[in-house]
Amino acid sequence: MGIGQSAEIIAVGSELLLGEILNSNAQFLAHELAALGIPHHFQSVVGDNQSRIHSVLETAIARANLLIFTGGLGPTPDDLTLAAIAEFFNVPLVEHPDIWADIQAKFAQRQIIPSENNRKQAFLPEGAQPLPNPIGSAPGILWAVSDSITVITFPGVPRELRRMWEETAVPYLRQQGWCQGPLYRRILRFWGITESALAEKVQDLLYLSNPTVAPYASRGVIRLRLAAQANSPAEAEAIIGPVEQEIRQRCGLDYFGRDDQTLATVVGDLLRSQGQTLSVAESCSGGGIGYRLTSTSGSSDYFLGGVIAYHNAIKIHQLGVSPVTLAQEGAVSAEVAKQMAQGIQQRFQTDWGVSMTGIAGPTGGTATKPVGLIYIGIAAPSGQVSTYEFRGSAQRGREWIRDISISSALDYLRRTMMIQSPELIQREILPGGRNNGN
Amino acid sequence: MGIGQSAEIIAVGSELLLGEILNSNAQFLAHELAALGIPHHFQSVVGDNQSRIHSVLETAIARANLLIFTGGLGPTPDDLTLAAIAEFFNVPLVEHPDIWADIQAKFAQRQIIPSENNRKQAFLPEGAQPLPNPIGSAPGILWAVSDSITVITFPGVPRELRRMWEETAVPYLRQQGWCQGPLYRRILRFWGITESALAEKVQDLLYLSNPTVAPYASRGVIRLRLAAQANSPAEAEAIIGPVEQEIRQRCGLDYFGRDDQTLATVVGDLLRSQGQTLSVAESCSGGGIGYRLTSTSGSSDYFLGGVIAYHNAIKIHQLGVSPVTLAQEGAVSAEVAKQMAQGIQQRFQTDWGVSMTGIAGPTGGTATKPVGLIYIGIAAPSGQVSTYEFRGSAQRGREWIRDISISSALDYLRRTMMIQSPELIQREILPGGRNNGN
Repeated sequence: MGIGQSAEIIAVGSELLLGEILNSNAQFLAHELAALGIPHHFQSVVGDNQSRIHSVLETAIARANLLIFTGGLGPTPDDLTLAAIAEFFNVPLVEHPDIWADIQAKFAQRQIIPSENNRKQAFLPEGAQPLPNPIGSAPGILWAVSDSITVITFPGVPRELRRMWEETAVPYLRQQGWCQGPLYRRILRFWGITESALAEKVQDLLYLSNPTVAPYASRGVIRLRLAAQANSPAEAEAIIGPVEQEIRQRCGLDYFGRDDQTLATVVGDLLRSQGQTLSVAESCSGGGIGYRLTSTSGSSDYFLGGVIAYHNAIKIHQLGVSPVTLAQEGAVSAEVAKQMAQGIQQRFQTDWGVSMTGIAGPTGGTATKPVGLIYIGIAAPSGQVSTYEFRGSAQRGREWIRDISISSALDYLRRTMMIQSPELIQREILPGGRNNGN
Repeated sequence: MGIGQSAEIIAVGSELLLGEILNSNAQFLAHELAALGIPHHFQSVVGDNQSRIHSVLETAIARANLLIFTGGLGPTPDDLTLAAIAEFFNVPLVEHPDIWADIQAKFAQRQIIPSENNRKQAFLPEGAQPLPNPIGSAPGILWAVSDSITVITFPGVPRELRRMWEETAVPYLRQQGWCQGPLYRRILRFWGITESALAEKVQDLLYLSNPTVAPYASRGVIRLRLAAQANSPAEAEAIIGPVEQEIRQRCGLDYFGRDDQTLATVVGDLLRSQGQTLSVAESCSGGGIGYRLTSTSGSSDYFLGGVIAYHNAIKIHQLGVSPVTLAQEGAVSAEVAKQMAQGIQQRFQTDWGVSMTGIAGPTGGTATKPVGLIYIGIAAPSGQVSTYEFRGSAQRGREWIRDISISSALDYLRRTMMIQSPELIQREILPGGRNNGN
């Protein structure tokens, strides 16, 4: 692969243009190209229409060398990716009898007789090599059309595409010299800081070229992506490591984890490493804290369970919240959050108790207690109970308020654990700890 | 809108090219364009790179008239969609003081001081009209660049984009004459039947032209989309209604609701209409049934709460499950599900009790109790307790198994309520009931 060469992903299918399916194949292939170090600057989507496929091809060959098509290889008349490609490059479609035999055999296994339509799938552009499909009827092609243009096609079925990509296309691309200087990535994750405040803190680093550092945000989690061009994991670590350490030094407790870590797995790892247990008392979150904590297999090591106390009677009878407090302060109050956290900690006999009560909306808000007002309680092993007031934006809606406040509760627990055990800060947050791979 | 005019969706973001996120915005917009009757033949994806955005613009203006951009409106230096568009059409970016004031006010509400970076979001191409963002800081633009080119931009955050699309962009497009011959849609929702079995049941209807009937599936929910070309809601109802009734007659209890209804809202409406209450006892679902039930505001009318009994000690002490049963049958057994459902119903004094215990994986499976094996228990007001065995596919992973089994539990509760009260079947499932809008 020469300098300046790159891939383009072209998805063919009217169902994409009608919004009936998500283009998950593009995400898969994009991720794979990045991992192989194959530059990739553009993606296109086009319908099952021969002249529009030609126009996309025209644009693509002017800016990319490796054209990866997905979709339009099926047996029906609207599947015309290969016909369009063959016509564009001015070659005929030729039948491959072995492919037709293979299709017939696959159908026989399922005791179905293939229709004449299916025979179409045995016709490939002249000069193209079949890309075997071990699990479906439609093969793809691997085709070095010229010194500068390579075309690969896949069926649109994600399961088939993935298998064909891994088994045949990747070895082919490696052998053709496409995969050089792969890109290594690390994601650093932050909570409790806005994207722009984080960007300001690391502003000078956003202009680095190797590694590149880019911020993005999703559901309150702010991420920094560090990407390095390197020839080995060790070289990548030498490029990424110092920048990562610098960022973590600057951001302190707002950094919570990297790569696939989530607030729930980080909290779980902290609890496990301390040999401690946790229970939850949930009102407005309705079980969502427990659901999030148990999203990881093995969470039974530290999570014992909880009470969903949606109705006040449950808060009183199952958690021991005082009816007087409920009457005087209301269910959405710091004091009730405190009693809920204490109640669950004592009744479930866990080291930590976490509670949440609030107004997720869209109804139920008042002038003094607006929609989005959430109280989080943490009962610590020391017996100390602290509460945290979180104010979500009412405009964002119930689903968002609940999702973000659950993250906030997990983050608040994480910070409380950290602050009470300074050795955890040293280990988890500051460079040199196990999150650095030591 | 003249003949031959069409839209192109252009997503900007290196995170798309790196495969870090799915292009769900393109699916949403594509679906909406189809619903509005706006032709749409191409989609593009390009990175945060000014000259590549220019090259995509060059291609797009040659084949489309309405260019819809998503992404790249954030506060950081790599967000340069507007700068690229302004430069391409050769106009300066001008500051809108009212937008900057609005950004400052939004930050003040959350008690945060905006950074100087955020100010960038108040600069729009000269001549472009701001497209207000009611929930985030970045506004978009609505810009009739010339008689033949209109540009609309949205931030990449799906929630913001959807709200801005519905509140401002759609009215704008209607007013500009883009939306002709509107398409009316109704979604019928099914659970407990495969997509192919449903397609077979309604095969003859899949060839209708008005309304069109198309099946699709997502997370176990099978949907039939009925789409009618009509000039008024009443005309659409006359076209869609009889086909809907025919489908519901054929599908019986596998049909559960339409349009925005979910299994959780349907169960909630049934409980409310009967004046009954519900509590949950959750093991492997970890609070997910409660979380799903409380996703609707007003669920406190019928949902009182529950116990997350992740650890066996909690099952014994909080739900009264027999230690002998746990030892003999194991925690994942129909008998334990039964005792959990009974225990929660009695202790929380609700009409109904629902329980779940199972192996969500990926670890913990055995030859006799594989990953994906789930038991659901339902304790009815009559005192009768029934259990249901659900087997999820281990290959689909923990998240999928939990999500689908929670839906199954809600569906099983729905069917149990229906079967015990035949008047509900008449009202909810068969034509003429309130689901038909009567």
